[in-house]
Amino acid sequence: MPEPLFEKVALIGIGLIGSSLARVVRREKLAGEVVVSSRSASTLERARQLDLGDRYLLDAAEAVRDADLVLVSVPVGASGAVAAAIAPSLKKGAIVTDVGSTKGSVIAQMQPLLPEHVHFIPGHPIAGTEDSGPDAGFAELFEGRWCILTPLANTDPAALESLTAFWTRCGAMVDTMDPDHHDKVLAIVSHLPHIIAYNIVGTADDLETVTKSEVIKYSASGFRDFTRLAASDPTMWRDVCLNNSEAILEMLARFSEDLAALQRAIRWRDGDKLFDLFTRTRAIRRSIIEAGQDIDVPDFGRHARPASPKP
Amino acid sequence: MPEPLFEKVALIGIGLIGSSLARVVRREKLAGEVVVSSRSASTLERARQLDLGDRYLLDAAEAVRDADLVLVSVPVGASGAVAAAIAPSLKKGAIVTDVGSTKGSVIAQMQPLLPEHVHFIPGHPIAGTEDSGPDAGFAELFEGRWCILTPLANTDPAALESLTAFWTRCGAMVDTMDPDHHDKVLAIVSHLPHIIAYNIVGTADDLETVTKSEVIKYSASGFRDFTRLAASDPTMWRDVCLNNSEAILEMLARFSEDLAALQRAIRWRDGDKLFDLFTRTRAIRRSIIEAGQDIDVPDFGRHARPASPKP
Ligand SMILES: NC(=O)c1ccc[n+]([C@@H]2O[C@H](COP(=O)([O-])OP(=O)(O)OC[C@H]3O[C@@H](n4cnc5c(N)ncnc54)[C@H](OP(=O)(O)O)[C@@H]3O)[C@@H](O)[C@H]2O)c1
Ligand SMILES: NC(=O)c1ccc[n+]([C@@H]2O[C@H](COP(=O)([O-])OP(=O)(O)OC[C@H]3O[C@@H](n4cnc5c(N)ncnc54)[C@H](OP(=O)(O)O)[C@@H]3O)[C@@H](O)[C@H]2O)c1
Repeated sequence: MPEPLFEKVALIGIGLIGSSLARVVRREKLAGEVVVSSRSASTLERARQLDLGDRYLLDAAEAVRDADLVLVSVPVGASGAVAAAIAPSLKKGAIVTDVGSTKGSVIAQMQPLLPEHVHFIPGHPIAGTEDSGPDAGFAELFEGRWCILTPLANTDPAALESLTAFWTRCGAMVDTMDPDHHDKVLAIVSHLPHIIAYNIVGTADDLETVTKSEVIKYSASGFRDFTRLAASDPTMWRDVCLNNSEAILEMLARFSEDLAALQRAIRWRDGDKLFDLFTRTRAIRRSIIEAGQDIDVPDFGRHARPASPKP
Repeated sequence: MPEPLFEKVALIGIGLIGSSLARVVRREKLAGEVVVSSRSASTLERARQLDLGDRYLLDAAEAVRDADLVLVSVPVGASGAVAAAIAPSLKKGAIVTDVGSTKGSVIAQMQPLLPEHVHFIPGHPIAGTEDSGPDAGFAELFEGRWCILTPLANTDPAALESLTAFWTRCGAMVDTMDPDHHDKVLAIVSHLPHIIAYNIVGTADDLETVTKSEVIKYSASGFRDFTRLAASDPTMWRDVCLNNSEAILEMLARFSEDLAALQRAIRWRDGDKLFDLFTRTRAIRRSIIEAGQDIDVPDFGRHARPASPKP
C-alpha cells in the first residue's frame, strides 16, 4: 500500500469540489486523516452522512489545526474571510491551497493574511459540473482534467512538488501558470461561456412574442445546451464575475465586436463571410476531442440515453 | 402488420435528416417503396451502400414520379431549385413536405413553383445533431422530439392528417404553427444559440494573448459545450442565417442589449443584479428536463457517477 501523501488533510468547504476531493482522497488513500469543515451545520451534517471525512468541525480554525494540507473550496468571494479565520491556527510548513475559479483576486485576498511560515500555492482544477453541494461530488471528477497551479514568486519547490503529486494522484494533469495569465485564459474558456449562456437564457425568458413553454418544448434545437451552463450556482458565478472583471470585460468587448461583424454579415447577406466563419470554427471541436477534453459522440451522446417525456 | 402509410415515398436529400427518415421509414414499414435521391453521385452511392432505400436516382424529377409522399431534406437555400426540378413530375394528390429549419423563406421559394394538384405542407422536425451526411442519421432521431408543421391557408385537412400520422409513426410529437411564428420561435431556440456559439469560438480562435492549445486544454470548463454547436454544417447554417435574417436580427438585437446591461453590472460591481439573473435562469433547465427535452444527468452525463445514499 502506498504511503499517504499527507498525514492530515483539512477540507474547508465541502461542496461539489470539496466533496469530490474528499472522495478521491479517501479512495486513493492520500491522507492519514481527513477533517471536514463547512460554513453551515446542515452541509456539515450532510457531509457526515455521506461519510466524507474522519472528523467534522464547523470551526475552520479548529479544522486546520495540525493539518499538513489545507484545501480551501469556497466561492472566491469568501477566500479572504476564510484566510482570516484559519491564519492563526495554521501549522508551520503546512501547504495551503484553493480551487477557486479566479486566481489574481484570491491571491490578493488570501496572501496578506496568511502567515509567512506556510506554503500558499493557489490552484484551480479545470473540472466541474452544473451541480453543487456535497451530494454533487464524485471521486472521478478530476480524471484526465487539468489542474492549474499558480505558484507565487517565492514558492518552495518541494511544496510545489508535493501539491503536484497530490493532484496527480487525484487523476489530474498539472500545469503551472502565472495568475494573470490564468485569469485571461479562464475568462475566455469558462467565464465568457457562462456569462453568454446566462445572458441568452435571460433574453429568451424575457420575450413576449415567444412563450416560455415554446422555448422549453423546442429547446432541443440548440438552446438546451446553454441552459446547462446557465443552471450553475449563482453565488459562485457572481463571485467569479466580480473577481475577474477586468479580463472578463476585455473578452466581452471582443466577443461583442465580433458579434457586431457577424450581425452585419447577416444584414448584408454576406453568405461567404458566414460560411468562412462557420467553417473555421469546426476544427477546434476536433482538436478538443483529440485532446481527450470531450466525448466523441454526436449530441454529447444524448441519444444513447434518450430522455423520456413525463406525462 | 400495419399497412404502409404511403405506397411510394421519395427522399430528396439523404443527409442527416433524410437518412434518419429513410431509416425510420424502413424500420416502421411506413412505405411500400422508398426512392432516394441526392445531388451528388458520391452521397447517392453511400446511401446505396447503407441500404437506405429501394431505388437510387440522381435525377430528383425521376425520383418523385408516382410518389405519394415527397420529403425534401436539403439546405433551405436549395429549396427553390429542388421545387423547380421536381414540379413537372409530381403526381396529382401527392404530399410534398420539407424539413428545413426556416419556414417563411422555404414557402416563398417552393410554393409558387409547385403545381396546384399537390399538397404542399412545410415542416420542421426539432431534432438533429452536429453531424451531417447519410452516415450521421439514425432511426431514433425523432423519438420524443417535436415536429412543427406550418400548413398554408388552403391545406387539405386529410393530407395534414396523413402527414401528422407519418411523423407520429416516426416517433415525433406534432405541432402546427404559423410559419412566421415558427421563424421567431426558432430564431431564439436554435438560430441565435448557433450564431452565438460560432461567434464565441471565432473570438477564442482570434486571441493573441491566449493560445489555441490553451483554449483546447482547458475547454472542459465551459467552452467545449459551444464547440459542439459551432461544429455544425456551414452550408446549412449559412442558409439559415440568410433565410431567417429578420427574426434572427431581432433576437440578436435583444441579446446584445441584455449583454450590454450584464456588462455594465460587471463593470459597476452590481453583485445583486448578477445574482438575480443567475438565479432566474436556473428554473428553465429544470423545466426542460421535466418536459423530457434533455437528459437529467450532470454535465450531459459525460461523467460516470457512482451511487450515493439519498438524504
Ligand atoms: N463548480 C465548478 O464547476 C467549479 C469548477 C472548478 C472550480 N470551482 C471553484 O470551486 C470553489 C467551490 O465551488 P463548488 O462548486 O464546490 O461550490 P459549492 O458546491 O456551492 O460548495 C461551496 C462550499 O463553500 C462553502 N461556502 C459558501 N459560501 C461561503 C462563505 N461565504 N464562507 C465560507 N464558506 C462558504 C459552502 O458551505 P455551506 O454549504 O455550509 O454554506 C460549501 O461548503 C469555488 O471557488 C469555485 O469557483 C468550481
Ligand atoms: N442538422 C440538423 O440538426 C437539422 C435539424 C432539423 C432540420 N434540419 C434541416 O434539414 C435540412 C437538411 O439538413 P441535414 O442536416 O440533413 O443536411 P446534410 O446532412 O448536409 O445533407 C444535405 C442533403 O442535401 C443535399 N444538398 C446539399 N446541397 C444541395 C443543393 N444545393 N441542391 C440539392 N441538394 C443539396 C445533399 O446532397 P449531396 O450530399 O449529394 O451534395 C444531401 O443529400 C436542412 O434544411 C436543415 O435546415 C437540420
